[in-house]
Amino acid sequence: MHRTKSAGGLLTLARDLKRRKARERTDHFVSEGLRAVGELAASGITVQGVICTTSGAASPRAAALIKTLAGRGVPVVRASDADFASAAGTGSPQGILAIAAVPRRDIAALGAADLARVLVLDAIQDPGNVGALIRTAAALGVRTVVALPGTADPWNAKVVRSAAGGHFHVIVTQADPATLFAALSRARTPLWGADARGRPLGEMTATASLALALGNEGAGLTPDVRGAAAELVALPMTDGVESLNVAVAAGILLYALRP
Amino acid sequence: MHRTKSAGGLLTLARDLKRRKARERTDHFVSEGLRAVGELAASGITVQGVICTTSGAASPRAAALIKTLAGRGVPVVRASDADFASAAGTGSPQGILAIAAVPRRDIAALGAADLARVLVLDAIQDPGNVGALIRTAAALGVRTVVALPGTADPWNAKVVRSAAGGHFHVIVTQADPATLFAALSRARTPLWGADARGRPLGEMTATASLALALGNEGAGLTPDVRGAAAELVALPMTDGVESLNVAVAAGILLYALRP
Repeated sequence: MHRTKSAGGLLTLARDLKRRKARERTDHFVSEGLRAVGELAASGITVQGVICTTSGAASPRAAALIKTLAGRGVPVVRASDADFASAAGTGSPQGILAIAAVPRRDIAALGAADLARVLVLDAIQDPGNVGALIRTAAALGVRTVVALPGTADPWNAKVVRSAAGGHFHVIVTQADPATLFAALSRARTPLWGADARGRPLGEMTATASLALALGNEGAGLTPDVRGAAAELVALPMTDGVESLNVAVAAGILLYALRP
Repeated sequence: MHRTKSAGGLLTLARDLKRRKARERTDHFVSEGLRAVGELAASGITVQGVICTTSGAASPRAAALIKTLAGRGVPVVRASDADFASAAGTGSPQGILAIAAVPRRDIAALGAADLARVLVLDAIQDPGNVGALIRTAAALGVRTVVALPGTADPWNAKVVRSAAGGHFHVIVTQADPATLFAALSRARTPLWGADARGRPLGEMTATASLALALGNEGAGLTPDVRGAAAELVALPMTDGVESLNVAVAAGILLYALRP
């Protein structure tokens, strides 16, 4: 566990956390931008430290947030614009970022309630898409988001930013397919996959519990997930039009298949 | 009408078209990346010219596309990586872009069929969101997308890219609110607005024709649109979660309110 209050220590840690290996080794992540830092602060997750620039701390909303965090004993350090930019992993991070421990959850240890409504990310590559999927899941009642191998690291700063706080409202976990299938089977949650060759959504009826898998932006579902799915479901689409964005497709499916 | 076959002329035009004023003055736009150029080529819109780098033209898919366009008499010019980068308006444009005339349509001249299914963008600021909305509209049977004042220019290269060809499957037009309301009234198409304080979506029944308005990412609908809307409709959302991405919300509403 990192426990440093020095500006240099926090800056070094934030820079380190741009690499997936460092995130996995230290089990920390970075949340950037006023909104994502605010959502983190409201989440109950212990914040390890905040780095901000002078201008990033200047708005009334930023000042109030920093005051709240400092009041809880969270180290808040000021950095130059250049130092801040070297630590930030997203564009226009608004001069404020926070570092926190990843709230790790093992899917094998989750109870049936947390496995009653699951979104499975089956090799979703784009960090913006992974973030939008987590945001969509959080808004539409999903309890657990599972990132399968080949999916962008859900604790990547770009993912955390584009999820707009979604990480703090659902369980976000990573698993291999066999572990996921075993957990779903134990919870008696059926796995469905989104697939253009599946049955039309309009013909499907929602089930009380559901794990919905969305596949890679280009290649679709992996053979593992396709093979394990009890149903494949297709969205109706205007002829000749390229597929929907994966987060939009997930939103429509989660809404239409709500319990 | 620009009619130049020189590399310098096309490069100058592409650089110029990064500015909204130049797009409006010349009535041309830029489509960047292999997929968006391919969708443009398939659309029937006359392509003014193509600029590519040596590596951008190298893949079999790019080579086939360039051959098709050159066969139609479209000027194709090679540019250095540096010149290409100075002309491109999006990140990683894959070494290929095309310039074409904006297919301008006046909403006052559209027939009832084109106004039977409309998506209204009410001051949507982010180009990525505007593109995702046009892509979603095209996939879900919308005929016309109307950008109201305050919306990012739908012919901005970032918007065209993120729409993934959507511009070539729906009518994309700009109008002021009064002109839009008059056209909808003439076509007897009711205007509905998405609003968190509206009636829950689950209680609403789709109508055969519908114009659906989505508001600004932060501020929501403008007073003009809110005042003109026959219905305000709200998406159900998990308590305490920030709102859905605007394109995800539009996808759910367009699907749930399909005729």
